[in-house]
Amino acid sequence: MIPTSLDWCRAQDAADPLAHCRDRFDLPESTIYLDGNSLGPLPRGVAERLAHVVASEWRTDLIKSWNTAGWVDLPRRIGARIAPMIGAKPHEVVMADSTSVNLFKVAAAACRLNPGRTEIISEPGNFPTDLYMMQGLTDFLGPDYVLKTVPRGEIMDALGPNTAAVLLTHVHYVTADMYDMQAVTDLAHKAGAMMIWDLSHSAGAVPVDLNGANADFAVGCGYKYLNGGPGAPAFLYVAERHLEVARQPLSGWFGHKAPFDFVDDFTPAADIRRMLVGTPPVLGASALDAALDAFTGVDMETIRRKSVALGDLFIALSRERLARFGLECVTPENPRVRGSHVSLRCDNGYAVMQALIDRGVIGDFRAPDHMRFGFTPLYLGFEDIYRAVEILEDILARETWRDARYQTRGAVT
Amino acid sequence: MIPTSLDWCRAQDAADPLAHCRDRFDLPESTIYLDGNSLGPLPRGVAERLAHVVASEWRTDLIKSWNTAGWVDLPRRIGARIAPMIGAKPHEVVMADSTSVNLFKVAAAACRLNPGRTEIISEPGNFPTDLYMMQGLTDFLGPDYVLKTVPRGEIMDALGPNTAAVLLTHVHYVTADMYDMQAVTDLAHKAGAMMIWDLSHSAGAVPVDLNGANADFAVGCGYKYLNGGPGAPAFLYVAERHLEVARQPLSGWFGHKAPFDFVDDFTPAADIRRMLVGTPPVLGASALDAALDAFTGVDMETIRRKSVALGDLFIALSRERLARFGLECVTPENPRVRGSHVSLRCDNGYAVMQALIDRGVIGDFRAPDHMRFGFTPLYLGFEDIYRAVEILEDILARETWRDARYQTRGAVT
Repeated sequence: MIPTSLDWCRAQDAADPLAHCRDRFDLPESTIYLDGNSLGPLPRGVAERLAHVVASEWRTDLIKSWNTAGWVDLPRRIGARIAPMIGAKPHEVVMADSTSVNLFKVAAAACRLNPGRTEIISEPGNFPTDLYMMQGLTDFLGPDYVLKTVPRGEIMDALGPNTAAVLLTHVHYVTADMYDMQAVTDLAHKAGAMMIWDLSHSAGAVPVDLNGANADFAVGCGYKYLNGGPGAPAFLYVAERHLEVARQPLSGWFGHKAPFDFVDDFTPAADIRRMLVGTPPVLGASALDAALDAFTGVDMETIRRKSVALGDLFIALSRERLARFGLECVTPENPRVRGSHVSLRCDNGYAVMQALIDRGVIGDFRAPDHMRFGFTPLYLGFEDIYRAVEILEDILARETWRDARYQTRGAVT
Repeated sequence: MIPTSLDWCRAQDAADPLAHCRDRFDLPESTIYLDGNSLGPLPRGVAERLAHVVASEWRTDLIKSWNTAGWVDLPRRIGARIAPMIGAKPHEVVMADSTSVNLFKVAAAACRLNPGRTEIISEPGNFPTDLYMMQGLTDFLGPDYVLKTVPRGEIMDALGPNTAAVLLTHVHYVTADMYDMQAVTDLAHKAGAMMIWDLSHSAGAVPVDLNGANADFAVGCGYKYLNGGPGAPAFLYVAERHLEVARQPLSGWFGHKAPFDFVDDFTPAADIRRMLVGTPPVLGASALDAALDAFTGVDMETIRRKSVALGDLFIALSRERLARFGLECVTPENPRVRGSHVSLRCDNGYAVMQALIDRGVIGDFRAPDHMRFGFTPLYLGFEDIYRAVEILEDILARETWRDARYQTRGAVT
């Protein structure tokens, strides 16, 4: 049994080796933020960095900054900083575009490395953009190509001589189910398929070992656990063995081996830069770069240990205090197959979440009826989790979520 | 003969209806900035807007800002603000991704609207990313597809029953040669081809009438004459008649008709949003949005009139004072076919430009031997142009560009 008393929570906080990291974030007052899996909060230093980029690099130095401030190298520099968090070599990762655009690039490259095979396998209920981008890609590649979605238990049987690539999200965006990266990658390779991992709900939250698993490609998000700010640039990974041969169709000038020679014919860079497309988004990239400072001196194993403990506590408290209202945990209790968030199925979940947010506990809602709670060890403590469940219990007990103002949905839920 | 005296320049500045707009920019001291065609300078209000987005929208309101701060609508809102500057309806333009990524989307959509035709026509020496993206696209579409580059004088002859689309840059990035948009679009349409315009060196600098010319698609850059900041998000245009049928392969979740329903199958939005891909880059988008305030109350005709006058003055001064050093104007003197910058061919142009920048006159260099000077009427005056040529003449006369420190090239030229 996991202890769930307030005293126990306070003792955990007092002994927490990551407690000092909370000061690395500029968190809003009277808020327990359980949505770092959707949008990371503001790390300290980001506002100052952006102000500097605007006032000095842009305003004063203008175009010189492409060289003097290293704007042109931001994609690789940031990639190299993310690399150790995902078990990659610095030159295998680059910051670029959005997760969606990167999915297209790596999946197209994977298919090209597997000519003659025309099937991409993923799972139903994967994050929508993963499926949508693969639908767009296969549709575009022609009638031979197909996206096949199979439930996770049946992937092994679905793999075959026509499988070009397998695309899976390492930690599921609703259930937080976490794949065994090594085992699944091995299966894909045994079938001769390329393995692509979407790390959007993993990077910065759970240890990932792309090199250890021998993964071929990966993509991930800059604005969730990496705290890069709303719509931050994303990243992608190409295994070293593919770096000089991977070809992606979005062959823009920043992917050229010599962009400033301004020649007519495209020759890809001989390194990870061939995955770049257009001019890098300097403002967003600078914010992400500064945000990564929040991870300085912290290893992923320590983060993981606390993340698991916070999740265990939340699940135990939910069982004790919320189950009687019909809330059901859809996230695995076993931490070996669980990411860094927990989802509760809840009737009227949308209104309940609005009422909860109104009380200063911020999680989010995913259709049709899931409330999601993210556990981000750098700035959350055990007492935060205790208080969050206490407030949620109160809302359910008193049914304050029935208030009319909690029923109206915004464009973004 | 165009007057070129200092007195005449000062008189022009005194009577300039756009003189007050200079205060809308936070320009560096002792600098004459002639590179707004590469990176627009910092408009006032942008730093404040970014600080607000970070401190209030991101830090305090967090995920609520998707609705309350309208983050989700930034792409359309900014598109609608750019629309009147390029002769488009508000719902025909959207901010998205980079110019390069947008080129891929619109060209793919154009090819799909012209099934059976497998040729894209452009011109040699077009901006490299335009050619590179079309090489990537045609290569990806299969062996039938081809990018054919023909010199501008021969485009009419090259058009044929296999031409799916014509992609041209309205104002050439080196020579500033400006196409007659109406005439070329008519030619393309007569041949049954889709017409795509790249407005990167036009938007915000020369009047553009996409609707008047009946253009099918267009793309453009946010960080040049629109002053959105380094690597600002780009924009794209889809003619109203194609809005519900254009299909592009980068079908990400923000292009879905209901992104927050989180369903497995992609159904494109019934409007310009189908051209969106991933999560919008809120920081860069907000900077661009604030930057567009610099155009408040100014019409493109007034901007154009002054831009032509500044360019005329520069060309006349160059002839008078620089020709004897062998500098040659590669930009048309006729303003009807000239954009808003002027390029001078110059031996040792790279070193000369470095020496010029060192004296506070900022233009840029494009391989192999072109010095570019951009004329941006909102913040430049006639005396600025006079002084710039005076300093350039001094550098050439005294050969100060021979100094060793002006010879070393950075990664970005």
